Amino acid sequence: MTDTRDMLETSPTNVPCGVADVAAAIDACLSCVQVCTTCADADLAEEDVDELRTCIALDLRCADVCDLTARVLSRPAHWDQFVVHRLLQACVRTCTSCADECARHAAHHRHCAICEKSCRACAHACNALLESEAFVALQRVAGG
Amino acid sequence: MTDTRDMLETSPTNVPCGVADVAAAIDACLSCVQVCTTCADADLAEEDVDELRTCIALDLRCADVCDLTARVLSRPAHWDQFVVHRLLQACVRTCTSCADECARHAAHHRHCAICEKSCRACAHACNALLESEAFVALQRVAGG
Amino acid sequence: MTDTRDMLETSPTNVPCGVADVAAAIDACLSCVQVCTTCADADLAEEDVDELRTCIALDLRCADVCDLTARVLSRPAHWDQFVVHRLLQACVRTCTSCADECARHAAHHRHCAICEKSCRACAHACNALLESEAFVALQRVAGG
Amino acid sequence: MTDTRDMLETSPTNVPCGVADVAAAIDACLSCVQVCTTCADADLAEEDVDELRTCIALDLRCADVCDLTARVLSRPAHWDQFVVHRLLQACVRTCTSCADECARHAAHHRHCAICEKSCRACAHACNALLESEAFVALQRVAGG
Repeated sequence: MTDTRDMLETSPTNVPCGVADVAAAIDACLSCVQVCTTCADADLAEEDVDELRTCIALDLRCADVCDLTARVLSRPAHWDQFVVHRLLQACVRTCTSCADECARHAAHHRHCAICEKSCRACAHACNALLESEAFVALQRVAGG
Repeated sequence: MTDTRDMLETSPTNVPCGVADVAAAIDACLSCVQVCTTCADADLAEEDVDELRTCIALDLRCADVCDLTARVLSRPAHWDQFVVHRLLQACVRTCTSCADECARHAAHHRHCAICEKSCRACAHACNALLESEAFVALQRVAGG
Repeated sequence: MTDTRDMLETSPTNVPCGVADVAAAIDACLSCVQVCTTCADADLAEEDVDELRTCIALDLRCADVCDLTARVLSRPAHWDQFVVHRLLQACVRTCTSCADECARHAAHHRHCAICEKSCRACAHACNALLESEAFVALQRVAGG
Repeated sequence: MTDTRDMLETSPTNVPCGVADVAAAIDACLSCVQVCTTCADADLAEEDVDELRTCIALDLRCADVCDLTARVLSRPAHWDQFVVHRLLQACVRTCTSCADECARHAAHHRHCAICEKSCRACAHACNALLESEAFVALQRVAGG
């Protein structure tokens, strides 16, 4: 259990959409940063690094995008719906691409198998937030 | 339960010191990034922001230092003992300063109370790694 | 003169759109990271911190979004048009908000005056890339 | 010309050591983030990726360490001598390792040649700050 949801709830400004959804997306992003960073590091030490070059590049982008997404979602008192929306879209996309590429190596490398799972979970959590009723309502107001 | 330890164990290169200690430090750092980021955001929305300015500045530094420490520890196959050592020292210091400052506001702001706890846990985990037998042995070899 | 354009041109894969536009956006983003980080730090030390709280929050988001945008644009060999597009949109938005807020304090605080200028320059450079012919053509192909 | 020095000089709190040295270190770190990020991306697209795996790993660490060093040095009003000292040491070390590895590939890959130069410049700027009279005096006071 992380402190994420508790922290979001202590903010003097309410989280502008479902706090459970936001907390789940943050936690999934932070896990994904860790897993993708170690997956890239492991890939670089594998004998078949030549086959893993796309995997490494996608791991790096995924870690960086998830890192920023976690930070921006962690600032509910200064929420910008447009920025959050575009970041979540970028995050779902990059997590999905990374998961698809890791899936190709999952049978040979357990780090890729775990990484596929973590990226799918993150894409799922970010997508659930994007498609949540509260988020869609905010997006409608923002004219996005 | 995070995937951190599992990921570290799938690396083709062994983690050069205790894998449980490294995983614990990574997880504590990532939690601290989240908590400090939300604490700074909440502080900025509090009526007594004037009293919280040092807290905000320390939250920001702590989040950034923990973010890098988590990344560098997540790359066991390309470990540089000197770099890891200096980062862990910086991380223990900045987490401790942030915890001490949050403690001053913990009675009025629950985000500071949670943040104090998270920073102490991170300082503790990084310090445990720094003082672990395996780490001290590596440091001796590195001549650090 | 930075090495950015030279570096992009040494990539074995061509930058998929105008290299001068991409280099200009990267350099503007990196300057903006620096300026926003120092502006937030200075704001936190000003007597009128109470008036500057929104400025600080926008500085922090701007620095983080620009940091990621610079990183993603710096990887031309592994370009994802969808991700780049969404990040550039988020970057233009957050730089513009930050510039508008800094403008309100520019008369009293020279760091806010410089920061306004830097954020406008970054919004301009990212927007120029977004609206460049080559980028629009890529976006059309991507179905974006 | 960057705005870095101007920004540092607008801080209500004086930079605790030579502002020109701090500005030079920040600018060198930000250039190094850019160059190392593109070098790793290019390496991953080269035919001889197998020979470049160490180079990629060092580029990634160097970019991340330089990114944090630039951020921490950009906050003069909330300077922690111990943290700055340890980060500068880590930065000099990781830039030097990266430069040495890039040097091995500089004849075949122009991105490695530029990257070597950028990493040496960053190591030099951070070392100049570390060894500056004003910094050494601060370090003595801090009990180093």
